[in-house]
Amino acid sequence: MLTELKKKVLQANLELVKNGLVICTWGNVSGIDRDKGFIAIKPSGVAYEQMKIKDIVIVDIEGRIVDGTLNPSSDTPTHLALYRAFHDVMGITHTHSTCATIFAQACCEIPCLGTTHADYFSNAVPVTRYLNQEEVESDYEANTGKIIIERFKNIDPMEIPAVLVAGHAPFTWGSSPEKSVENSVVLEYIAKMALETIRLNPEIKPLPEYILQKHYLRKHGKKAYYGQKGNHS
Amino acid sequence: MLTELKKKVLQANLELVKNGLVICTWGNVSGIDRDKGFIAIKPSGVAYEQMKIKDIVIVDIEGRIVDGTLNPSSDTPTHLALYRAFHDVMGITHTHSTCATIFAQACCEIPCLGTTHADYFSNAVPVTRYLNQEEVESDYEANTGKIIIERFKNIDPMEIPAVLVAGHAPFTWGSSPEKSVENSVVLEYIAKMALETIRLNPEIKPLPEYILQKHYLRKHGKKAYYGQKGNHS
Amino acid sequence: MLTELKKKVLQANLELVKNGLVICTWGNVSGIDRDKGFIAIKPSGVAYEQMKIKDIVIVDIEGRIVDGTLNPSSDTPTHLALYRAFHDVMGITHTHSTCATIFAQACCEIPCLGTTHADYFSNAVPVTRYLNQEEVESDYEANTGKIIIERFKNIDPMEIPAVLVAGHAPFTWGSSPEKSVENSVVLEYIAKMALETIRLNPEIKPLPEYILQKHYLRKHGKKAYYGQKGNHS
Amino acid sequence: MLTELKKKVLQANLELVKNGLVICTWGNVSGIDRDKGFIAIKPSGVAYEQMKIKDIVIVDIEGRIVDGTLNPSSDTPTHLALYRAFHDVMGITHTHSTCATIFAQACCEIPCLGTTHADYFSNAVPVTRYLNQEEVESDYEANTGKIIIERFKNIDPMEIPAVLVAGHAPFTWGSSPEKSVENSVVLEYIAKMALETIRLNPEIKPLPEYILQKHYLRKHGKKAYYGQKGNHS
Repeated sequence: MLTELKKKVLQANLELVKNGLVICTWGNVSGIDRDKGFIAIKPSGVAYEQMKIKDIVIVDIEGRIVDGTLNPSSDTPTHLALYRAFHDVMGITHTHSTCATIFAQACCEIPCLGTTHADYFSNAVPVTRYLNQEEVESDYEANTGKIIIERFKNIDPMEIPAVLVAGHAPFTWGSSPEKSVENSVVLEYIAKMALETIRLNPEIKPLPEYILQKHYLRKHGKKAYYGQKGNHS
Repeated sequence: MLTELKKKVLQANLELVKNGLVICTWGNVSGIDRDKGFIAIKPSGVAYEQMKIKDIVIVDIEGRIVDGTLNPSSDTPTHLALYRAFHDVMGITHTHSTCATIFAQACCEIPCLGTTHADYFSNAVPVTRYLNQEEVESDYEANTGKIIIERFKNIDPMEIPAVLVAGHAPFTWGSSPEKSVENSVVLEYIAKMALETIRLNPEIKPLPEYILQKHYLRKHGKKAYYGQKGNHS
Repeated sequence: MLTELKKKVLQANLELVKNGLVICTWGNVSGIDRDKGFIAIKPSGVAYEQMKIKDIVIVDIEGRIVDGTLNPSSDTPTHLALYRAFHDVMGITHTHSTCATIFAQACCEIPCLGTTHADYFSNAVPVTRYLNQEEVESDYEANTGKIIIERFKNIDPMEIPAVLVAGHAPFTWGSSPEKSVENSVVLEYIAKMALETIRLNPEIKPLPEYILQKHYLRKHGKKAYYGQKGNHS
Repeated sequence: MLTELKKKVLQANLELVKNGLVICTWGNVSGIDRDKGFIAIKPSGVAYEQMKIKDIVIVDIEGRIVDGTLNPSSDTPTHLALYRAFHDVMGITHTHSTCATIFAQACCEIPCLGTTHADYFSNAVPVTRYLNQEEVESDYEANTGKIIIERFKNIDPMEIPAVLVAGHAPFTWGSSPEKSVENSVVLEYIAKMALETIRLNPEIKPLPEYILQKHYLRKHGKKAYYGQKGNHS
């Protein structure tokens, strides 16, 4: 069932290890088949080096297991909330990658300080508020999705495909599972540079808006001219 | 004699190298057979790449060698003191991993600043006092154990399976030798993030208690729901 | 056509990955055949692991494709501007390597703080001004070249073969494509050390001029005595 | 001629690359045969991956080449000065390893902040003064040796087998070429930790003297009890 999607999701999960974004059994990637309304996601607490296609769990949009013998990632309700709210999202990645997590722990957004950031995100990467006690105790993982969506009220999630959950860690998304992983890789890279840029020059202002827009639009949208025909995102 | 335990302890020691927690001949892991009262531990000053099962030393709880031809780790008396005081501990790891050691050298505890920390430790990772001159000169390694135990007077060592010895480095422990190594890996990871979180936002407060508890209990105790049945810690 | 140059340029591009200077499809290296007036450059947005000699694009000094089926790097107009202005430059490298990019984002030059720097650059590595809105909107990549050249008005580009573009990232160059990559490797190394040197001792002054000159001239010019006969740069 | 020594020196030089202490053709290790008065040292500016036993140069204590067809390291006069002044030194290593070089560039000694440091160095790792203009212009490399020796006037070089040359980088030494490399590896490690310890807690004092001495003497001298019989240093 959905072997092709499971394969892509497995492959995307293994990319997390290869790119140094996760240790132990941390992190997870999912992908969605919007026609069938089914989501493929990493099983909870399984070692990456032993994970096989058959271990990837298929759930429906309400979180009911429709295929697989293992428990899905405990973060599944967060993924589902995001798929329901962000209609163009086809893949979601969650890691505790160090530098992005540092910003999340510090409850600071990542300002756009250079063109590397602007090539992928059309503005600062936002940070959520903390969940309150009731939200944590009632339906923690679903409510994590809720506060992300709340934070994106006036933001196009396809233009800023990443968020920092306060006190927790980042989530990223994209037009496919692998694209959501690439966004996690880049998020970690720009977080690392932002951390040190701010420290080297505490007075530094965000990149001028006209440079930010130029770089974002070199790679995204109808007038993109980076890359070869057909591989713009 | 105790070949199975020796094998596990050897394997756990080699994990230190693989995870970048040690260089040279530094660090050591031990494991205990509580029924027999015997401890298996790394030999002192032997290169990791040459270490074999037969090099692992077996000592009794008083530190007398009962099997093996090499000297046990010079830190053996510290391990023994911890095994005597912490009855559920089945494995102990000592490293000088950089970020955890930085906190130990700075005589600072590692505050819980995010859910990554809360997934493994139910509160801040404590730091001991310095040993005094008499403690250093009389029975240094045993007294290192003593000040750790003193620091854990009101702390459950299974809920916070790590400590920073002031001016020295971390010790971690767990329900098996390999679990104690995993706790060292995670300790290094959260120390790295805490170091930079504090610097990015010097005003940051520890994670709200209700989030900390939620994350800790997702992975630990009777109501844990992370992972597959039977692999909760 | 120009197979030898294409081969060198491909090889130099792959060195970027090997040296950890790029991720994804970022960065680019070019080389010039000054007799023919042709430039070989990396194609835009192509994965490094799949890049082959035939993918390297040949353009003339005006940027017209003369060989190859792919689009050249979107940064090609910057390379061309530099080749036109700096007559001894035979290869150019562009990366977003983290520490050099941090200085570029912070709009700070890299002062010469030690002999490692002086072995390769005869003074501070300069930073450009930001492009203004008109320059960004009219001919962005060519204008990036323009502000680099403007910054080098009184600087010999062969004595300081690197620049930081404000809010963007570094460009380096040299007497061959591979030499321009080596200069990127070293630039990243000295940026990393400068970042921490300044922080450890905010009062530190640049290296005394007589030490700087001594080290630069040990490796460069007629009286160089580092290395074996014939391999001075 | 001296094939055994050349082999050890080649091996020790290759360890620099393996331990991430050098890039490009930087760094050098030498070893001495005190009976014959001959020194084996890395050739200048030769790539590590191509270096062979026959490339190692043999010089006498005055620096005259007695065997080999390549130029010896340009830092040879510094090595010779140290061998002449420090009679128990059998091997010398020079690198530009990042964290040790950061302290050298900042003109700061590395204070002893923990037992990792005390296991190898019996006190702070000292920094020299800058060479003056005359010293640089007349006999630069020999004078680099001179200011190191001057700095060790009241220090036993076998108890503190490392120095930071102001504005330049570290030199380390030891009872063999490989031991001098190990001291460079450890120097880099403790420099990295000191850098962050000071930043995390700017008020931190050096390790109490009685702990420092205890750790140093666990590993060094007659009462050493770390390791197996016969491998104390």
